[in-house]
Amino acid sequence: MQDWLRLLHTPGLGPRRVARLLEGFGTPAAALQSGARAWAEVGVATARDGDEISAREAGVEADLAWLERDDRHHILARDDPAYPPLLAELPDPPPALYLIGDPALLRRPQIAIVGSRDATAQGLRHAERFAGALAAAGLTVTSGLALGIDAAAHRGALAAPGGSTVAVVATGPDRVYPSAHRRLAHRIADQGLLVSLWPVGTLARPGHFPQRNRVISGLALGTLVVEAALRSGSLITARLAAEQGRSVYAIPGSILSPVSRGCHRLIQQGAQLVESPDDILEDLADWLGVPGQAPPDTAAPTDAASLDPEHERVLTAMGFDPIGLEELLQRTGLTVAALSSILVLLELNGRVALLSHGRYQRLDAGPSKT
Amino acid sequence: MQDWLRLLHTPGLGPRRVARLLEGFGTPAAALQSGARAWAEVGVATARDGDEISAREAGVEADLAWLERDDRHHILARDDPAYPPLLAELPDPPPALYLIGDPALLRRPQIAIVGSRDATAQGLRHAERFAGALAAAGLTVTSGLALGIDAAAHRGALAAPGGSTVAVVATGPDRVYPSAHRRLAHRIADQGLLVSLWPVGTLARPGHFPQRNRVISGLALGTLVVEAALRSGSLITARLAAEQGRSVYAIPGSILSPVSRGCHRLIQQGAQLVESPDDILEDLADWLGVPGQAPPDTAAPTDAASLDPEHERVLTAMGFDPIGLEELLQRTGLTVAALSSILVLLELNGRVALLSHGRYQRLDAGPSKT
Repeated sequence: MQDWLRLLHTPGLGPRRVARLLEGFGTPAAALQSGARAWAEVGVATARDGDEISAREAGVEADLAWLERDDRHHILARDDPAYPPLLAELPDPPPALYLIGDPALLRRPQIAIVGSRDATAQGLRHAERFAGALAAAGLTVTSGLALGIDAAAHRGALAAPGGSTVAVVATGPDRVYPSAHRRLAHRIADQGLLVSLWPVGTLARPGHFPQRNRVISGLALGTLVVEAALRSGSLITARLAAEQGRSVYAIPGSILSPVSRGCHRLIQQGAQLVESPDDILEDLADWLGVPGQAPPDTAAPTDAASLDPEHERVLTAMGFDPIGLEELLQRTGLTVAALSSILVLLELNGRVALLSHGRYQRLDAGPSKT
Repeated sequence: MQDWLRLLHTPGLGPRRVARLLEGFGTPAAALQSGARAWAEVGVATARDGDEISAREAGVEADLAWLERDDRHHILARDDPAYPPLLAELPDPPPALYLIGDPALLRRPQIAIVGSRDATAQGLRHAERFAGALAAAGLTVTSGLALGIDAAAHRGALAAPGGSTVAVVATGPDRVYPSAHRRLAHRIADQGLLVSLWPVGTLARPGHFPQRNRVISGLALGTLVVEAALRSGSLITARLAAEQGRSVYAIPGSILSPVSRGCHRLIQQGAQLVESPDDILEDLADWLGVPGQAPPDTAAPTDAASLDPEHERVLTAMGFDPIGLEELLQRTGLTVAALSSILVLLELNGRVALLSHGRYQRLDAGPSKT
């Protein structure tokens, strides 16, 4: 372990260059014993004058102290049998992973769910619902702990019965970015797994995000993009997934919504359009070795036929946009008392949500019309 | 012409069986001179006992009287050089087309735009906007005169500068179905073209619709489905277009909307996801022989950078769902006076629509975010 850490803490070496050295020399010890010229021959030019390695010993000590501090802290080097096999398939896989939580999750089948920080309310609901259903079906949900879709995906997975989630962060394992997600990060460390590629104390840097994204897609069998703008990090993650030979899924939306454009672009380029968690489970059925069926999805009941016709009429009148009580009264012709009692029942059944300012919105999909 | 009409008015023969007789015998006259046994040999079994043809002469007379009544009435037989070439490519093309309006439109490049009768407000706007832009770019917009998307597509094309539209109906040329579209049908007869496959006086029958749909897709270079439920006529039209080797385009939408499901299914099966009229013009550029660029699309201004930052902020706060003034005040923190004057300007610029009950909705696409 000490040799791994010394290599990681050698000035000028990041995870990708360390990976290249390991490819060239086989082990950290062999790499450390080789000189600058030999390093240059495997494509790692350094500013070193001589042949001496001068690791930042304070960094090595800090990592080791962190490792000792808590049973849930782990550092997983590439030669460890617990190293995630799908990640090991990548060119230049990360030489070491800093972990907080349950390392066994890394060997379970994972689905990456990523998307915009500026997601719409409906996008956040989709992320939570898909994550919950996929987690309940046995997939670990992997994402990046970012605001918006990422956080909704982590939360959806944590809320599912038996659900688990992995967060790959762009900082060292002891830092949380964004700071608004400190509590979420602690919940994930307790019930899931936090993964970092960087030593203790490392702060988020712009250059970290593409490397982080590559690990998110690299850990997973497939990547689902819920909402994403054009030229966004989520699109990069999806492109990396495709390059890694993994499946890419995208949820469509209104052609007027900027955060659906990225998803539409992906679909135009060959990503699979998905409407439900089942679409993903069916696609991954061969990998999962189980029939691709999500457990009943309470947020999208399909047994609409059994609904009271009056309730069905209210749902139809609502449409899928938020609507005020007054307009709904006009559209249905019901009395306030009748409509209110129907809305309460629909809300209890999870078919309708009460939004701010007394407005309502359908949460479920309608029955398909002929 | 009389021979054509006699064949069309022979009891038990519809357009498809007449087409088969023409394939077998070359001309209507030759078919009329052949006996029942010869007909059976080309796959047209009839209840005729002897070899005599007994056309409904009253029907022939009615067609001829209709033809004489108005300069804009035409009957176009399959051997007429004005018969639309793309339709002639189909197996069993319609033996004769009953026309009201300008027959020259049949030889122009056409785009079929079809969709649900139960369209959403946004779907109707999409149909009108796409039809307007494609018509302005030189494509004739072909549809089925049905309620919902079809009618919006015809209207969008008629409103475009230099735009033209073709309506293929499921009745005889002198009947309008649905009757709510009588005025629209007259506008199309005046400024475009009505097409029927059936003799004068024929009423709509369920069996007519698949034949009508086949002609809509068969006349066009490609078919755009704006909104459609699963198991809908629009999906049949799209499938026919694909079988005919034509392009199929579909507009995506919310995964919660039943009338987006059909579009999503089509995309999953290989239809092209389109976000703008330009996507279609680019795809058809080779056929059109013109650079695939729609003229400026007033409904979707893209020059958002030049907008007052305050206006931009209001648009961002609106999102894409209908919103009341009160909630918009809260989201923006503006005064009523300031917000109202901004909304008036945005409405004048076509960026925002005032809906019923004082609610507003964005009409334009937002700028893509990074």
